[in-house]
Amino acid sequence: MALSFIRDSVEVSRGDLADRFGLDRKTVSRIVGGLLEESIVELAGYREIGPGRPQELLKLRGEWARFIGIDLGATHIIGLLADLNLKVEERIFYHIRPGLPVQVILKQMKAICDRLCTSMPAGTRSRAIGICVPGFVDPRTGVSELAENIPGWQDINLRDDFEQSFECPVLVDDSSRAWGRAELRLGANRGMRDAILLDAGYGIGMAIVADRKLHRGSTNRAGEVGHTVVQPGGPRCACGNRGCLEAVASGRAIAAFAQEGLRNGKSELLLRLTKNDPGAVTAQDVAIAASMGDNFSVDLLRRAGVGIGLALGNAVNILNPSMVILAGGLVSRNSVIEQAIIEGVRASAMPGLMEQVEVVTSELGTDGSALGAVSMAADTVFAPN
Amino acid sequence: MALSFIRDSVEVSRGDLADRFGLDRKTVSRIVGGLLEESIVELAGYREIGPGRPQELLKLRGEWARFIGIDLGATHIIGLLADLNLKVEERIFYHIRPGLPVQVILKQMKAICDRLCTSMPAGTRSRAIGICVPGFVDPRTGVSELAENIPGWQDINLRDDFEQSFECPVLVDDSSRAWGRAELRLGANRGMRDAILLDAGYGIGMAIVADRKLHRGSTNRAGEVGHTVVQPGGPRCACGNRGCLEAVASGRAIAAFAQEGLRNGKSELLLRLTKNDPGAVTAQDVAIAASMGDNFSVDLLRRAGVGIGLALGNAVNILNPSMVILAGGLVSRNSVIEQAIIEGVRASAMPGLMEQVEVVTSELGTDGSALGAVSMAADTVFAPN
Repeated sequence: MALSFIRDSVEVSRGDLADRFGLDRKTVSRIVGGLLEESIVELAGYREIGPGRPQELLKLRGEWARFIGIDLGATHIIGLLADLNLKVEERIFYHIRPGLPVQVILKQMKAICDRLCTSMPAGTRSRAIGICVPGFVDPRTGVSELAENIPGWQDINLRDDFEQSFECPVLVDDSSRAWGRAELRLGANRGMRDAILLDAGYGIGMAIVADRKLHRGSTNRAGEVGHTVVQPGGPRCACGNRGCLEAVASGRAIAAFAQEGLRNGKSELLLRLTKNDPGAVTAQDVAIAASMGDNFSVDLLRRAGVGIGLALGNAVNILNPSMVILAGGLVSRNSVIEQAIIEGVRASAMPGLMEQVEVVTSELGTDGSALGAVSMAADTVFAPN
Repeated sequence: MALSFIRDSVEVSRGDLADRFGLDRKTVSRIVGGLLEESIVELAGYREIGPGRPQELLKLRGEWARFIGIDLGATHIIGLLADLNLKVEERIFYHIRPGLPVQVILKQMKAICDRLCTSMPAGTRSRAIGICVPGFVDPRTGVSELAENIPGWQDINLRDDFEQSFECPVLVDDSSRAWGRAELRLGANRGMRDAILLDAGYGIGMAIVADRKLHRGSTNRAGEVGHTVVQPGGPRCACGNRGCLEAVASGRAIAAFAQEGLRNGKSELLLRLTKNDPGAVTAQDVAIAASMGDNFSVDLLRRAGVGIGLALGNAVNILNPSMVILAGGLVSRNSVIEQAIIEGVRASAMPGLMEQVEVVTSELGTDGSALGAVSMAADTVFAPN
């Protein structure tokens, strides 16, 4: 408890700790003495208050331990090595082509962990590994139950598998919730009581902060905004229903619509970007073409953005958050889609709710989920789970 | 704390209390002695365990106090007088015709409170009044900020007004959340960790239970499922947006569609029910005609139900509750709409979430919100707010 208070306060004095936990000075000095001896905490400076002796300020000593975070997406694996303060020391990005066999993906995830392990300073070793994956995940068992955007990915016990390979605690959670956790620790919604994070990439997920905690739902499946229906009777979705947001506006859907358009000769520019292979087009290509002024691509992104905004506004109506954070690969790539999202939110969020919500874009770039995964690992020090 | 434990356990022994709160027998006996003396608690019977003396069981003595609950809807006022155990002793139903002036509605609410006060046994008086209203409410100030289905109803300080008139604490909240509270105390989701309640009547609201607590949102406006968009570009809603659930499927919308149909000669039977006045048709008339086999009315209800189900399934995707409770005037009236709602939920809730949610119909009839209002009042005894 004292440790997480030091973490969340960045810098604190012994007096702050005594006040916060209602302990006497002697007890606090004993606890802090132990933490200094173990080198988890270090001196951060001094605070002068009045004529007396200046107060010593304490902070976490980041280098005390290293942690690994792995973010598996439908089109990438990101691996991070970071210290106790979540300061990133190394980053590995690996591109996945849709359709890569599950065993190859798992092997690659482990290879990334291996490499990050060898990067650690001599004498240290990873205290824990955090892994986030899209779809249904059970953090209690560490099983990735279903990631429908990764063909064949089902009921994989990531915790057991990685704990055996790396002999340290392994934490597993959903990627959007991981991103939400990173924002709570490092980002826009630090200290927010009610907020939602939209994670739009190849798939679309959501993290919900309700009453300062991540809302998980009854079976850890909350946040499936990608499967809310935004176009009744619309295109069939991978989940089996029709008109889901993911079937209409995800990176996957944008690529599918672009492919169809290219086959019908809709954009010379985009076709050139794919080296004349319509089947290879990605949402990223569409974003690049849009930034070069390609009308077909701008229109695709705009329509996707309005769809995302509609689903997001519906979530605002249900949850009444004070902040909405736009995040994920789709959002970080292009302002066309961002503007369209805000337009869509305005069309569906009730005016009385809209005027009370702040919409911001995540400042964590594309690494939000990976940072969340590291944070899951680092949190084992503060409250082991 | 001991009191709410006795309430929630229905019957407990002194030993149960000692175990629950980690107190010694002597302290528990002293506390219980005080409660017995005050007549808040009474002997409920005996529990035989083994050869020793049977344990005395305790329960709340309902008659210790009376409470009033007032539920204001767009088309009704319901007033209840109940005891500490929420046993209803008197019920008053008053029909409101849409368009009734705000001052007349307020006067009528007070007249109902007055009548319930005079019904109390000699020597008792109401300990508190709970009032629930639709729309935006701030429970901290007791102000009903906006009820768009009641013309002219805006920024009414119900708490101040009723506290002055009745000289007792007055609690104010949103009607759907009140219904959710009643279910938590008396109904289907007792003890549920994550549940949602759909309250479909003239308007459509929702109560959300997240982690065993009512989720209120950042400004107490959570649960506006009635303003989630289910038909993009659809009919204009009172809130200003297009295609909101309330504009497509509420009691208000059903009446409007029925009126239009009657003007186009769509149903002889329904027209007769309105005594040849299409302008007077209500959703209740449509439900009656449907139960008599009128195809036009069945179709209206079916379409409304599918729309409601779609919005509800979207909420299931976002929140992952273990239980969905269908409630409100529309639902309690007709099985056509109930079946259509379930059909709509199936079309929008993700299969992986749908299989883990139980859909039930509230057993509190049309009085759910009013019971919630009484419960708000009675809870002042357990944890004054």
